[in-house]
Amino acid sequence: MLEAIFAPRSVAVIGASPDPDRLGHQVLKNIVQHGYQGRIYPIHPRASQILDLPAFPSVLHVPDPIDLAVMVIPARQVLPVVEECGQKGVQGLIVISAGFKEVGGEGKALERQLLETVRRYQMRMVGPNCLGVIDTINRLNASFAALMPNEGEIAFMSQSGALCTAILDWSKPQGIGFSRFVSLGNKADVDEVSLLQAWNEDPHSKVILAYLEGISDGPGFIAAARKVTRNTPVVAIKSGVTEAGTRAASSHTGSLTGSESAYEAAFAQSGIIRSRTMSELFDLAKLFSYQPMMQGNAVAIVTNAGGPGIIATDATERSGAVRMATLTPETIARLQRDLPPTANVYNPVDVIGDARSDRYRVAIKATLEDPGVHALVVLLTPQAGTDTEEIARVIGELAATYGKPVLASFMGAMSLGPSLKILNEQRIPNYTFPERAIQSLASMARYLEARQQPEPEFVHFEVDRERVRQLFDRVRESGRVELGEIEAREVMEAYGMRLPRSRLAQSPDEAARIAAEIGYPVVMKISSPDILHKSDIGGVRVGLADATAVRDTHELIEYRARKYSPQARIWGILVQEMVRKGREILVGVSRDPQFGPLVAVGMGGIYVEVLRDVALRLAPISRQEVASQIRSIRTFPLLRGVRGEPPADIAAIEEVVLRISQLVTDFPEIVEMDINPLVVHNQGEGAVVVDARIILA
Amino acid sequence: MLEAIFAPRSVAVIGASPDPDRLGHQVLKNIVQHGYQGRIYPIHPRASQILDLPAFPSVLHVPDPIDLAVMVIPARQVLPVVEECGQKGVQGLIVISAGFKEVGGEGKALERQLLETVRRYQMRMVGPNCLGVIDTINRLNASFAALMPNEGEIAFMSQSGALCTAILDWSKPQGIGFSRFVSLGNKADVDEVSLLQAWNEDPHSKVILAYLEGISDGPGFIAAARKVTRNTPVVAIKSGVTEAGTRAASSHTGSLTGSESAYEAAFAQSGIIRSRTMSELFDLAKLFSYQPMMQGNAVAIVTNAGGPGIIATDATERSGAVRMATLTPETIARLQRDLPPTANVYNPVDVIGDARSDRYRVAIKATLEDPGVHALVVLLTPQAGTDTEEIARVIGELAATYGKPVLASFMGAMSLGPSLKILNEQRIPNYTFPERAIQSLASMARYLEARQQPEPEFVHFEVDRERVRQLFDRVRESGRVELGEIEAREVMEAYGMRLPRSRLAQSPDEAARIAAEIGYPVVMKISSPDILHKSDIGGVRVGLADATAVRDTHELIEYRARKYSPQARIWGILVQEMVRKGREILVGVSRDPQFGPLVAVGMGGIYVEVLRDVALRLAPISRQEVASQIRSIRTFPLLRGVRGEPPADIAAIEEVVLRISQLVTDFPEIVEMDINPLVVHNQGEGAVVVDARIILA
Repeated sequence: MLEAIFAPRSVAVIGASPDPDRLGHQVLKNIVQHGYQGRIYPIHPRASQILDLPAFPSVLHVPDPIDLAVMVIPARQVLPVVEECGQKGVQGLIVISAGFKEVGGEGKALERQLLETVRRYQMRMVGPNCLGVIDTINRLNASFAALMPNEGEIAFMSQSGALCTAILDWSKPQGIGFSRFVSLGNKADVDEVSLLQAWNEDPHSKVILAYLEGISDGPGFIAAARKVTRNTPVVAIKSGVTEAGTRAASSHTGSLTGSESAYEAAFAQSGIIRSRTMSELFDLAKLFSYQPMMQGNAVAIVTNAGGPGIIATDATERSGAVRMATLTPETIARLQRDLPPTANVYNPVDVIGDARSDRYRVAIKATLEDPGVHALVVLLTPQAGTDTEEIARVIGELAATYGKPVLASFMGAMSLGPSLKILNEQRIPNYTFPERAIQSLASMARYLEARQQPEPEFVHFEVDRERVRQLFDRVRESGRVELGEIEAREVMEAYGMRLPRSRLAQSPDEAARIAAEIGYPVVMKISSPDILHKSDIGGVRVGLADATAVRDTHELIEYRARKYSPQARIWGILVQEMVRKGREILVGVSRDPQFGPLVAVGMGGIYVEVLRDVALRLAPISRQEVASQIRSIRTFPLLRGVRGEPPADIAAIEEVVLRISQLVTDFPEIVEMDINPLVVHNQGEGAVVVDARIILA
Repeated sequence: MLEAIFAPRSVAVIGASPDPDRLGHQVLKNIVQHGYQGRIYPIHPRASQILDLPAFPSVLHVPDPIDLAVMVIPARQVLPVVEECGQKGVQGLIVISAGFKEVGGEGKALERQLLETVRRYQMRMVGPNCLGVIDTINRLNASFAALMPNEGEIAFMSQSGALCTAILDWSKPQGIGFSRFVSLGNKADVDEVSLLQAWNEDPHSKVILAYLEGISDGPGFIAAARKVTRNTPVVAIKSGVTEAGTRAASSHTGSLTGSESAYEAAFAQSGIIRSRTMSELFDLAKLFSYQPMMQGNAVAIVTNAGGPGIIATDATERSGAVRMATLTPETIARLQRDLPPTANVYNPVDVIGDARSDRYRVAIKATLEDPGVHALVVLLTPQAGTDTEEIARVIGELAATYGKPVLASFMGAMSLGPSLKILNEQRIPNYTFPERAIQSLASMARYLEARQQPEPEFVHFEVDRERVRQLFDRVRESGRVELGEIEAREVMEAYGMRLPRSRLAQSPDEAARIAAEIGYPVVMKISSPDILHKSDIGGVRVGLADATAVRDTHELIEYRARKYSPQARIWGILVQEMVRKGREILVGVSRDPQFGPLVAVGMGGIYVEVLRDVALRLAPISRQEVASQIRSIRTFPLLRGVRGEPPADIAAIEEVVLRISQLVTDFPEIVEMDINPLVVHNQGEGAVVVDARIILA
């Protein structure tokens, strides 16, 4: 997939220029000089030869087939040329030219036409408005970057071209290498989803990094990422999350930026490792691309100094994802035998300041051979007599043997130059300070844990979808967007929720008859499409215990409703079972413009209002996700039961959330809804939707 | 202060050796070769000359006075030599020798004797078991470090000698410089408190950095730090915070490590900036030592690329401490006039990828001259035509003019070498990625805000301290550590708390008489020093509404108590005012072994039990601290009032906490106590201690 872009057999550079100051020259030169093996066709209206290659006035003049065309021409010239490319049978386009959506107005229209042409000829396109694409596997540098990156196993995509430049410049002397390097630009066609799909199971990429400012197709992104992350770790940094950042992002690439919490949920549900800073992004890239995956979460630390050992131990315990390994008695005996008596043979293993490579060898071998150790971090402070280069060599040699990730933190710089080079050559990620090594391992452990979860299981309930469809149609026909209480009840019923028994009464006597059937006490509520805030007008009364009370209340509520709004259509007075006490839950849905329905769960009342204690997931929600969602609210202990209370019916809450997830997935027109409260009884006793509100688009 | 150690007029090196492989040689050489201007006396039993200096068999043989003696001799030889130093009138000692407290047993005893000798002669001592001391102001390198650090304005102390080595090695090529550099070792005498005091208002140090594993004198540390941080920022990294880290710390230097929450409170109350990682420590060190203090929290960003601008904007908004500056219309007009039309003239100001130094100059000058800008971050991605070196020069030149902090994030490495050097020479801190620049600024803003708070005000209440003293004596005499309820009441009363009215009754009739006086309803409780869990035996009854109920309950409770424990001493049945409902607060105290009493405040019941929602401060607590303490609990909105409730009497809670702070400061023997609940009524109506528990050491 996307072969034409990453592995074309021939490339045309449209706008190739003989003038070395022009971008079109730079792009052609990059393709020529970095070892690309396919055929290269400079396209230029007049030149007959550029950089020793025969040039052509257009792609249509090229006698052989062209897989990829790279455009470095002014925006207004792009369309006819793309048309020619289509006719020529070109399959891939990289449009470097700027002047499209990002400039607004005319540019926007131009980009729409461009995309339309691309689609018509079934081509694929990167850009417009990008730095280009680099593929080190095929040695294709189809960009105007000043540098060719080192070869490596990191696949990188970025929505910011300047960031690409900076990353290339920064990575080169660090020895960090890339397999593919893509500047997404305006991502009119090829976007983050296309690249995730293209790079799934790519044998040349051990990790995928993404710098994103906005996501074009939220649900598609989640679906693609769910798949990819089961094979390949994806680390993403999402910018433009805060309000001010969003403003900057919008003015930058005109992309629509989703709300922070939707991203949080999307990344978590799809198994993407979210990085908060650029440093962290590359800390992880080094670890994932250089070292094998951990097979557990226990870390051993070997150090030649106490202080850094403590720093690393602290970072480990604080991580919440990795822990200090407990060494076996055999390992400890071995270390005691082979290390001097002053050494600390427990984890962190301290080989002491005067240690040379022989002692490091003993400690590294013993810890890596310990079955209870899943990863090793080797710390070094340069002291008198420390043979840093030899130690670096020993680490590389032993790391290759055991299939466990090994990380280094050689602390210093002045005296470490050569040893840092050796570490990098042997693919041992090194971190100037130990905390970052540990934090990277912790992310790896979290990724591993997520990947080991069973495939998400999506439940499908038997529901009466058609009934809801018709109801929504009726509501819309009546010109409303908010459903009345009875309508909301009907939707809940159609999707299998338990509701308090209730019926509409048209007179005091009928109310009393219904109440007798339902059983006392009952609740009574005005039912009118024109009265939304029922409580405010005294239109709700609870705990009515006998027929007299019910009759009186019917009369009173009706009187109040008429007084409040003489024109109001009154459907009757609802007489409802009074739900016995239970724990009150809120289940709410809002619709994120990029990712779709975001479902919130929390304890009702002040827990939600004051403590904002809700957990969010994007629908569709899997069985596993709803379980973790409910368990992640801070007040979950109140559901599990404190002070000897029995547990609440958590399974019933899960089911309600899953049914809501199905409802809002079936009906994208629901822009907002909440169940508040869902009254949850003790384990095995179910949950009842007492009140629900639904708003359509 | 500590002049003899940092600025001695003469130094003796005891253990100086002619053998270049010996530590004693290295130390002498470091003193000689790095430019120390005072007199230097090698002390060696036989040698007559070392490194061209006349040597002496002992300090007593040196004809002139000696200010400082550096010891590099085996531990067992140290004591007699220190004795000689004392006789000689030496004032400062640096004991590099290991083999003291850190090896346990005999070493511990040796260290005690060493300290005793040092104290007897009123000398001051760094170490033992350390790397030594470096002072770049006086060019004194009294250490066995392989490097002399660059000169600079960072004062650094570290409890780990190896970390000192690593930091020196790392800082040298970065151009980071130090004023003083101290390896604390076992800190038998000079510890973090002595150094904080010595470095207060040190004209050569703009920031103090500390790597700590444990703190010797918690309250002393807080008192010293409170003072120093009002003049000089102190950034500390505290290791050994987690359980596993603590184990490592204990085996490392045998130091006592305090609990995490006590450290958290200690650092916050004393204004110390806590750093979580070594990278952060030096990020801050560079900012504080290179740049002036911010005078507000508004940040401007100048960039030549959109993506990094968004990253920085995000980091700013997320920081919670700095915000994006709003540029004045004048600044915007100026930028519009002087920058090309494609530039973004709002903050972040984007001078566009092809910008050269002239455009950077325009943008930097305009933003720095804007009165609404308090700090500037300049971002750069190396693009074709970017004159990075000239831009670095422009930044340095302009930064020096406006007295506002200016930071850089030149993203890259390959093409940036010379420009990074220029930035550093001009004391512009540079960060590879923008987030770290912003995070550093955020820490500066937080520090600034803390420093601008008025001096902490400690309230002293008139209390009956003597009564509590006598009561505690009686409790101890009776062989108990836990106070009975009546005793705890007495303590509360002596310290001015409001309590429910109550009296002991010896008979049903007396109980009824007391209840009539107090007013119905009342609470009744068994009062016995032998029955601690009163509720468990049915010994507490609430809501007794009339004389019959009171008489019956007296009889019943007494019967139950006798049945439960025939031998129990029964003081009577307590008849107590039933406190009317209010919001329930817990005020608790535990004693941290290093920092003393730690006072917790939180909403009672499940908020504390399930949500663990408490805020902690170390006593003595100031007026400002208690105010921020109460406001920092998550459930504070419940006290302020939600859903139209009136606010609770927050002033009354504050007063109770301050009185408790005074109590536990007056009586260090209180190891644990809590008031649970403190029932707080509405604003102006006070708070009542309903139940209190006190445990003595």
